[in-house]
Amino acid sequence: MVTKNQIKLVVSLKQKKYRSQHRLFVVEGEKLVNELLGAGLRPYQIFVSDTNLLEEFDQAELVAAKTLKQMSSLTHPSGVLAVFNMMAPEEGHTADWTLVLDAVRDPGNLGTIIRLCDWFGIERLVCSKDTVDCYNPKVLQATMGSIARVGIVYTDLESFLSETDVPVYGAYMDGEPVYGSNLPEKGILVMGNEANGVSSEVGKFITHKITIPQFGATTAESLNVATATAILLNEIRRR
Amino acid sequence: MVTKNQIKLVVSLKQKKYRSQHRLFVVEGEKLVNELLGAGLRPYQIFVSDTNLLEEFDQAELVAAKTLKQMSSLTHPSGVLAVFNMMAPEEGHTADWTLVLDAVRDPGNLGTIIRLCDWFGIERLVCSKDTVDCYNPKVLQATMGSIARVGIVYTDLESFLSETDVPVYGAYMDGEPVYGSNLPEKGILVMGNEANGVSSEVGKFITHKITIPQFGATTAESLNVATATAILLNEIRRR
Repeated sequence: MVTKNQIKLVVSLKQKKYRSQHRLFVVEGEKLVNELLGAGLRPYQIFVSDTNLLEEFDQAELVAAKTLKQMSSLTHPSGVLAVFNMMAPEEGHTADWTLVLDAVRDPGNLGTIIRLCDWFGIERLVCSKDTVDCYNPKVLQATMGSIARVGIVYTDLESFLSETDVPVYGAYMDGEPVYGSNLPEKGILVMGNEANGVSSEVGKFITHKITIPQFGATTAESLNVATATAILLNEIRRR
Repeated sequence: MVTKNQIKLVVSLKQKKYRSQHRLFVVEGEKLVNELLGAGLRPYQIFVSDTNLLEEFDQAELVAAKTLKQMSSLTHPSGVLAVFNMMAPEEGHTADWTLVLDAVRDPGNLGTIIRLCDWFGIERLVCSKDTVDCYNPKVLQATMGSIARVGIVYTDLESFLSETDVPVYGAYMDGEPVYGSNLPEKGILVMGNEANGVSSEVGKFITHKITIPQFGATTAESLNVATATAILLNEIRRR
């Protein structure tokens, strides 16, 4: 029997403040819950509103559809809602490239970028504190299971970048064409905010400004940050 | 004075059927309307609900906010709604690469792909008839002004591809790594549906199956179609 306090906890997790406090986050939908379980994430609690789903999720608790709707962020709850423990990101250095996000705000963009890290084997994603929370439900929907396979940390970028000794590449509209730049084996790539690009504070730490060359009319708008990240991670890996 | 028939026409353009019949489409918001005007698109009619906007859009007709809301697809209309004449796509051959979309359904994906064509100077985008309509308001929001600079046609892909004599590349999960394939100066790139990839009917015309190599855990989901298009167009241009 689900208690009022359990419901209250799940509802509170819609807010970043409580997600951080409890180190818990919510995922909805059979496919996504299964992916995270498959990726080895530890569930704190799983709720289903359909007895048929009890066979699939044997640790789940059966609740009324009305109760699930109360806990859900979706207009049409899917029948499965799971609360997961956040992963503890691994500390320390990596022998490879690190991706850094400076104030990326759109949940869909962050979700796509996490999937890209997974695809291209980028193990560490470092986000400024004003980047959208990776446990935001819209980010989770966009990442698929990738969230479990990429180590994500939120930190102060100025202090993070001041301590690194690898080259720091930043995506700019007016940098060197990326095709010509000899990308090293190990480095940091910084992607900026959707509207403003890399901030001037973070810009001080950039050692190499790079650009994706434009081939069409010069009137074309800038590329979307997730799209630009896709192209630059591909450039890093294709070396 | 706006007539009931004018309002009825604008409202009808929310449906693809009427957009195709009248060869007209609707765009909302000051920025987007200005971009399309700047790109040389011919407005059929512009409505504003604020006298201040009359200076900016001198051909505009002033209507009551209530009337604009009636015509608008937005929950919060922006004050400017323009009806544009569709462009007549140029027929014939191109000396360059053509991008082909086989049943891409998500408006955001199509919008991003149109922006990518603009960025990478791909002048012709050929869509299967079941690809989402490029004049869908969500597509227009995602394309920005790029819609005016890319020639988009909807046609039967089997007959289009049966008539071409350039190599036809298709994005697959199990093709040759794109890094090794010597991309020619002129060709066709086919991108498939979000869930199912390139259909078997269209697959018959593919002469080269290509793949973006995966570097992470092999458990990573496939890349999103817009992201994959970004990487492959970049590969075509970086030659």
